[in-house]
Amino acid sequence: GDKAPVDWQGSFNCSYNFGGPGFKNTSAFSGSDVQLNISNYGEIRNSSNVMGVIRGSVEPDRYVIYGNHRDSWVHGAIDPSSGTSVMLELSRVLGAKVKQGKWRPRRSIIFGSWGAEEFGLIGSAEYTEQYLPKLSQRTVAYINVDIAVFANATLRASGMPSVQNVIFKAAKQVNAPGVDSTSVYENWMKYSNRTSPEHGTIPRMGYLNGAGSDYAAFVHYLGITAMDLSYTYDRSKTNARIYPAYHTAYDTFDYCSKYIDPGFVSHQAVARTAGNALIRLADSLVLPLNCSDYAEGLEDYLRTAVGLYEGQLQMWNISMEPLKSAVANFRKAATRMDRTIHSLDLANETPLKVRKINDQLMLLDRAFLDPLAFPDKYAFRHVIWASSSAGKSTFPGLADAFASANNSLGEPSAQHKVHYHLSVLSQAIDSAANTLDEVI
Amino acid sequence: GDKAPVDWQGSFNCSYNFGGPGFKNTSAFSGSDVQLNISNYGEIRNSSNVMGVIRGSVEPDRYVIYGNHRDSWVHGAIDPSSGTSVMLELSRVLGAKVKQGKWRPRRSIIFGSWGAEEFGLIGSAEYTEQYLPKLSQRTVAYINVDIAVFANATLRASGMPSVQNVIFKAAKQVNAPGVDSTSVYENWMKYSNRTSPEHGTIPRMGYLNGAGSDYAAFVHYLGITAMDLSYTYDRSKTNARIYPAYHTAYDTFDYCSKYIDPGFVSHQAVARTAGNALIRLADSLVLPLNCSDYAEGLEDYLRTAVGLYEGQLQMWNISMEPLKSAVANFRKAATRMDRTIHSLDLANETPLKVRKINDQLMLLDRAFLDPLAFPDKYAFRHVIWASSSAGKSTFPGLADAFASANNSLGEPSAQHKVHYHLSVLSQAIDSAANTLDEVI
Repeated sequence: GDKAPVDWQGSFNCSYNFGGPGFKNTSAFSGSDVQLNISNYGEIRNSSNVMGVIRGSVEPDRYVIYGNHRDSWVHGAIDPSSGTSVMLELSRVLGAKVKQGKWRPRRSIIFGSWGAEEFGLIGSAEYTEQYLPKLSQRTVAYINVDIAVFANATLRASGMPSVQNVIFKAAKQVNAPGVDSTSVYENWMKYSNRTSPEHGTIPRMGYLNGAGSDYAAFVHYLGITAMDLSYTYDRSKTNARIYPAYHTAYDTFDYCSKYIDPGFVSHQAVARTAGNALIRLADSLVLPLNCSDYAEGLEDYLRTAVGLYEGQLQMWNISMEPLKSAVANFRKAATRMDRTIHSLDLANETPLKVRKINDQLMLLDRAFLDPLAFPDKYAFRHVIWASSSAGKSTFPGLADAFASANNSLGEPSAQHKVHYHLSVLSQAIDSAANTLDEVI
Repeated sequence: GDKAPVDWQGSFNCSYNFGGPGFKNTSAFSGSDVQLNISNYGEIRNSSNVMGVIRGSVEPDRYVIYGNHRDSWVHGAIDPSSGTSVMLELSRVLGAKVKQGKWRPRRSIIFGSWGAEEFGLIGSAEYTEQYLPKLSQRTVAYINVDIAVFANATLRASGMPSVQNVIFKAAKQVNAPGVDSTSVYENWMKYSNRTSPEHGTIPRMGYLNGAGSDYAAFVHYLGITAMDLSYTYDRSKTNARIYPAYHTAYDTFDYCSKYIDPGFVSHQAVARTAGNALIRLADSLVLPLNCSDYAEGLEDYLRTAVGLYEGQLQMWNISMEPLKSAVANFRKAATRMDRTIHSLDLANETPLKVRKINDQLMLLDRAFLDPLAFPDKYAFRHVIWASSSAGKSTFPGLADAFASANNSLGEPSAQHKVHYHLSVLSQAIDSAANTLDEVI
């Protein structure tokens, strides 16, 4: 057909045209109205979470949870079955080791094959709500691999800054598919990187500040440290956010094996990376979560916030000093914690001393929860990673409150909300710093 | 003066009369209006929490907190200084042992001398809010001794049912003042007892469902297991709830030493009982918290709720089965936990196995928290012990929602709130049961 209008054009480097002859100006249907008969109907259906567990040998009461949904629109070869195949392979390999008596992780591993994700993350939300206290008290981390392979250029990873270290270590030990003698890590760095004050040039990891997959309840409602992994596009060639057959009847095994990941080598790379991270989290004596990287993330958010808001806030007589001081306290506590970890004599520490440190690391994200921080957003309790409509790469509640106050043209109650949220935020960061500090 | 009207009569066995001649019918002032000139003014004053800590030797990251306020209306010899003297004595004795190198508790002990209690529990509320995550993650129990001695007849104790066991054991090891060869426990039983399905006749402990002293934030906002101890009246002789000089300028050392506790023997009994409980909580290998006693408390509340509400709820088409099943699940999990504890080979268990059980016991009350359970009551999050205006000895949110619905004469939204709270409650009890169950 004819070329479609500019704002109908998609993200691939090709021309997007209208469909068949009926769409042409010369068509007999040109200028017609379309009558759409909707025959949807509501129906109650069951959807199950299917769970698998490997009991931990030393700390069975510490969980590393690995999950993905199982339901799909139509066939769903890629969404979710690319992720499901990765999870099944991991559970097969680890399960075999356990059954052979060759290995059992230090901590418990829980695999969750969630139901009803496409209807609103229902399976994982129900699971986390039903078991909230024990999951919140005992979960070290949640790993999500939903669409494992969007495309076959590079790893994409999102998560709390404290898992960056885990993902990097894992990605360095896996070969990148289709590139000789290159690790997933090196390959990733070529496609997407940033400069870290502490680490220099490193791959760029994203944050989990949306609710795009089953990590949402873990991150936003329970404050559990989480990561989401996949293989994806070369962003220099396309700004597509999704593969073309996504959520259509064309998302089939044939499509996946022919066009998205011939040979399933990207699936394999994701499985190896995610599995490596899973084992690190479940089996390391000291949890590999890095709180100084978290400090870097907070400092980055703070820098952006100061740049965007401080001038205006001063005019409203609102000080950012408490926030600055909280972030500085967090950095100090993180440095102290790092020093404590590095000075551990791992072979000789008592189990309870290591557990003390691991508990501090595990529970760090819980300290950022405030169930009253976002009164208008049910299920968002994590003050750092909640979703935001302001579109700024900084503290979400502050960004949203500032945008409202700015649009309100001087309404004092809107400015008061900015001030209030700044208190909530500073208090949460200070509290988190306190949990990293020496325990007494 | 003349005898005051019946509903002005107080709780002591004496006649309560009007004051001087000005109150007589024959007075020149009879029938006059009174003009009251109020010269209060607001002023910002500082009030400090004074903290003391003993670092735990084995689990420094586990806290037993002991507290009382320090501020008073006027002199406050009894409120709060009777409690303060008990705390100072305990910290002196334990501090001396620690300084002499003779003893250090397994867990950390934190003494809190709270400021500004009389102005709304401000000192303890600020402390718990400021350090919420770490206190919530690490606090084994909170012991409150505010007015240590109301009168000198018997011990009075309130707390979560899981501390009953700790208080009983402590009270059995302390001699009752003024009664030969009788323990505080035996003496208490004479004044106030009940029949427990499991333990037979035992002293009657109260619940902490109000906000009468600094335990409030610990119990209601953080869900920390707590107890409140004092010596009090013979209730068969008076239904006074407070000593006559309470909150007046007559609450002096002279008054206390002459009329309330000559020889300070009741102070001593409270100090010994509270100190004994403190040491049990801080120094026992396995925490002495008893979850089966908690089950008994829930069953008691359930029985009352079923008796009061089930008939009417059936007419509203609201089932109490989920609540019954949750309480039954809790009992089952508690029995299992008790069995696990009794089968421990204490000399040979690994530190992490004991820690696992202790964490389950410590965090049990946290599982009953729901920050959205009482939308109209800020700072009440514990679904079992929140305050209630219904005046029934059962689940507070259910009692209040039922009373509202009953008064609303068939308003569906009021009935819906009963149904909703029943879900919140059942879910919380089920969650708590889950935390007691085998961890994986």
